[in-house]
Amino acid sequence: MAFGVRPRTPVQAALLRMLRDEGPVSRAALVDALGVGRARLAVEIDALGAVGLVEDSGVSVSRGGRPSPQVALRSGLRFAGVDLGATSVTVAVGDSRLEVLEVVEEPCDVREGPVPVLGRVDDLLRKVLASTGTPDLAAIGMGVPGPVSFREGVPVSPPIMPGWNRYPVRDELARRHGCAVTVDNDVNIMATGERWGGVAKGMDDFLFVKVGTGIGSAAVIGGHVYRGAAGSAGDIGHIKVADGPTCGCGNDGCLEMVFGGAALSRDATALARSGESAALAARLVGGSPAGDGVLTALDVGAAAQEGDAAAIALVKAGGRLLGGVLADLVNFMNPTLVVIAGGVARLGHPLLAEIRQTVYRQSTPLATSNLPIVLSELGDTAGVLGALVTASDELFAPA
Amino acid sequence: MAFGVRPRTPVQAALLRMLRDEGPVSRAALVDALGVGRARLAVEIDALGAVGLVEDSGVSVSRGGRPSPQVALRSGLRFAGVDLGATSVTVAVGDSRLEVLEVVEEPCDVREGPVPVLGRVDDLLRKVLASTGTPDLAAIGMGVPGPVSFREGVPVSPPIMPGWNRYPVRDELARRHGCAVTVDNDVNIMATGERWGGVAKGMDDFLFVKVGTGIGSAAVIGGHVYRGAAGSAGDIGHIKVADGPTCGCGNDGCLEMVFGGAALSRDATALARSGESAALAARLVGGSPAGDGVLTALDVGAAAQEGDAAAIALVKAGGRLLGGVLADLVNFMNPTLVVIAGGVARLGHPLLAEIRQTVYRQSTPLATSNLPIVLSELGDTAGVLGALVTASDELFAPA
Repeated sequence: MAFGVRPRTPVQAALLRMLRDEGPVSRAALVDALGVGRARLAVEIDALGAVGLVEDSGVSVSRGGRPSPQVALRSGLRFAGVDLGATSVTVAVGDSRLEVLEVVEEPCDVREGPVPVLGRVDDLLRKVLASTGTPDLAAIGMGVPGPVSFREGVPVSPPIMPGWNRYPVRDELARRHGCAVTVDNDVNIMATGERWGGVAKGMDDFLFVKVGTGIGSAAVIGGHVYRGAAGSAGDIGHIKVADGPTCGCGNDGCLEMVFGGAALSRDATALARSGESAALAARLVGGSPAGDGVLTALDVGAAAQEGDAAAIALVKAGGRLLGGVLADLVNFMNPTLVVIAGGVARLGHPLLAEIRQTVYRQSTPLATSNLPIVLSELGDTAGVLGALVTASDELFAPA
Repeated sequence: MAFGVRPRTPVQAALLRMLRDEGPVSRAALVDALGVGRARLAVEIDALGAVGLVEDSGVSVSRGGRPSPQVALRSGLRFAGVDLGATSVTVAVGDSRLEVLEVVEEPCDVREGPVPVLGRVDDLLRKVLASTGTPDLAAIGMGVPGPVSFREGVPVSPPIMPGWNRYPVRDELARRHGCAVTVDNDVNIMATGERWGGVAKGMDDFLFVKVGTGIGSAAVIGGHVYRGAAGSAGDIGHIKVADGPTCGCGNDGCLEMVFGGAALSRDATALARSGESAALAARLVGGSPAGDGVLTALDVGAAAQEGDAAAIALVKAGGRLLGGVLADLVNFMNPTLVVIAGGVARLGHPLLAEIRQTVYRQSTPLATSNLPIVLSELGDTAGVLGALVTASDELFAPA
């Protein structure tokens, strides 16, 4: 495929992003928006047309009444997004405007290692490409549950991905699918997705926090995810919040050992078994919604809503701990918005109330005077959407 | 003066910064570096010459052996930097390359309010302008000890600056001195100075921490200080690290209540009076270096170096607390460097050793695998130097 031909000129890059973000645009409007002459614009459009990225798209009538031919991204342009989690993989295909055409999710254990897991990803990609009638892809964006060197396209010392350290994920996918590929951390793509189409739409500086099995965050600064020196920025799961229990990282009392999804399940089960929570005991015996005898955030949230005192106390204690960490980060970063996402966010309003109360009390007034703390709007689809955005950002980047 | 005439074209802005950073450059080299034609370059140089910013500067012989006329910033161009602290003010004059020509420091109580303090700043500025033979200034950069709206040039709810909230510092100085003025937070200008000429020279992503009377930080990201939504980013002094004592902010156990310069002085004096530290008691009776019966970080550092167990314990406890906060910030930001500055940094190596040990143990391996934690090289002059840099950055910014 020729889509990946680079380098793009700055004008080409700006043109491609504008068409992605706004849809078909008249040549007259492009001349104005890009600050180039008509002849130069025509040359750039021809160059992008020759590699299959843009096409003519009818004629518009401008305010002055003069018709001007429109340009659009090629209507057959397709992107794929892959969101690999610890225990599942989600794959989506999006069109040139990044509208999701189809999305599939399957259980998948990342610990099986890169070769079988990337084989699964390939199978799923082929499946959604076939069912959406997509002959080829312009670019693939992928997220993985660990630190990533974005520049090199490889996971770097990912704690829960044995066998993946520095595995050439980007180059391997690019080889198999013959298109540009980006690889990023899973929380980074969720934040990117939430900025594209969720509660953080268009916001340039915000803090995104995912509380799932583990806990991670992403700081979006100046409209871009801040990745840090080694790709590990946002790694807040190992901030010390208590004196125990011992974490896999070797330290005691890491945030995600005390209030991640796994910790919540452990504590809820203990409350059920000890008889301290009748509501949780009933769910454990009756079978949790997942039907596997495991209590999740959904169970705890439901028990708390029923007024179960032990479940309420569990949510409040966790919210205070997480809120304490967020209060420090809010002081340090002074963001315009905090977004809470991930499975534990299903605890819902009681969790949010406790987090808000802690942050508003404990952070400085200046940092909180105008600071919404909200739940993700996109939930599980934020990741694949963000992967589509990141893939197209890179494909449409200037040289 | 016409220096401030704007908007500058992007080419003018790039040209001005290049001459500031590199000194005189030949027209041939400018054509290459800026990617513009000779005729366009001449037009831009003439425009900047007309407003007194650049001048001809002899002839260089290029590698090809052809002589090319050189351009430089006007040799008489002068910037002023003002670093207003809680109890002192420092003023410097720098030349077009930001070499400091003269610097003066005087005690000054910021609590007297903006009118008398800005009067003092004016007097000091006139003094250094006279003694350096400077008829007028291209721009003034000023730092103040509190949160600042950089865009508006005003302090915003500064806790230790009564009477300064939203006072038009920038516009008032600009009116009095007839030049462009920037106003920033004092820790931000220190970080900027350290990046210009200190231990962080040329580094794009680092964490700068000032432990003075209070404790603050600045995150430099992509070569720029990150200021946050309300200008309060970096405010780490009120991160909770203990259960007491109560802070002026209304919370308990804020970092700067437990380990700022004031806290250290308080704790050292208590150790001296209780007899727990003979070395500190001797200094308190004999008079501290400051001669005012107040023990400072210098006294505690000296007592620790003499082997005084109580002083050593004080330094270690403080280093562990500060190190614990930095460990969390290192996880979140994944910086390439951490710089420790401010009066308490005079505790020196024992403090640094304790901070390093805590961060290296408590942060994730990926974030610390290649992370120097070092003392500021510039000390007290970082602030005024950074103010010069910020002032020239803004004067030389594209429209």
